[in-house]
Amino acid sequence: MQLACLDLEGVLIPEIWINFAQKTGIDELLATTRDIPDYDVLMTQRLRILKENNLKIQDIEEVIDSLGPLDGAKDFLDWLKSEFQVIILSDTFYEFAKPLMRQLDFPTLFCHKLGIDEEGNVNEYRLRMPDQKREAVKRFHELNFQVIAAGDSYNDTTMLGEADRGILFCPPQNVIDEFPQFPVATDYAALKNEFLQAREDLG
Amino acid sequence: MQLACLDLEGVLIPEIWINFAQKTGIDELLATTRDIPDYDVLMTQRLRILKENNLKIQDIEEVIDSLGPLDGAKDFLDWLKSEFQVIILSDTFYEFAKPLMRQLDFPTLFCHKLGIDEEGNVNEYRLRMPDQKREAVKRFHELNFQVIAAGDSYNDTTMLGEADRGILFCPPQNVIDEFPQFPVATDYAALKNEFLQAREDLG
Repeated sequence: MQLACLDLEGVLIPEIWINFAQKTGIDELLATTRDIPDYDVLMTQRLRILKENNLKIQDIEEVIDSLGPLDGAKDFLDWLKSEFQVIILSDTFYEFAKPLMRQLDFPTLFCHKLGIDEEGNVNEYRLRMPDQKREAVKRFHELNFQVIAAGDSYNDTTMLGEADRGILFCPPQNVIDEFPQFPVATDYAALKNEFLQAREDLG
Repeated sequence: MQLACLDLEGVLIPEIWINFAQKTGIDELLATTRDIPDYDVLMTQRLRILKENNLKIQDIEEVIDSLGPLDGAKDFLDWLKSEFQVIILSDTFYEFAKPLMRQLDFPTLFCHKLGIDEEGNVNEYRLRMPDQKREAVKRFHELNFQVIAAGDSYNDTTMLGEADRGILFCPPQNVIDEFPQFPVATDYAALKNEFLQAREDLG
């Protein structure tokens, strides 16, 4: 019995913060963990910028709602759900992902949460737990599931390593070089084939 | 951060074996755990009956496909998915549930599996693990989720007890009497209210 665990950003939807920065024209929001490696520093800066620009959760949802899933993502996900039980494992926040999850018919998502006050100000972020993707795969194993996982970047590699089969989807070259043990798919047709091959290998 | 865990049969879809028995006219398949308390004896009998009637998995899927979800179930589930992350915990088998899950847009389902040979004969059943509903709730707690669970019968009560809030949906009177600690909802509007109330209580 097999679960499919998928990363969200870069696999089904665009990178939310980058696209949010572009839509709002706030260049300072383009910073990622590549620019500011300390995630706490990065998130604290992001929340400060939201506040300075008086962006409340309603404004943020409206901007993100104007983004769409990646081309072909909905069809791929519909296919995957018909073949496997699917859980999305992402390090995004529910409030940011929701407008895009709606466009994907709300697949089951395990991620983190923002703290929002009554006026809609985003004033904190709450990580549900460290290394939550890998921890989730461990728990699914304890429930006697085999896990086939796919993701695109560094923060997915512990999940891919913990899974029975890990697949890289459109990863950057440095991740391909550093993790040669994982097969690479560069479009949804190839990703489908990797999932089917993994299922066959696992029996 | 909260998960909604739902039982399947009696909550979103009709009782599969009973409706399958009625559709096929095979009265012997009407037996349930109330008639044959030993689940292993019951399932062995069911598989023998399928074989005697030359019912292959394709025939079974066709019959089950003619059943539909309960009235209002799809709308309720769509609402629940928009408000919570949803996982269905059921003691049915993937092969039996699939035609009905398709009609519900394939929500994530944790259940069990049948063994099917190349000709489509159902020749064994594989329980993923004992008391899997409760075990799943325990693992979701370890992933720092709160869990609100709803089900209709005895085999749900360990899940309801393990969850942060348990709700009975259209249960038989003996379950109501034996588990007075759980609120009872008798239609989807009331079940919605119980989920919203539970979320508010849990903060």
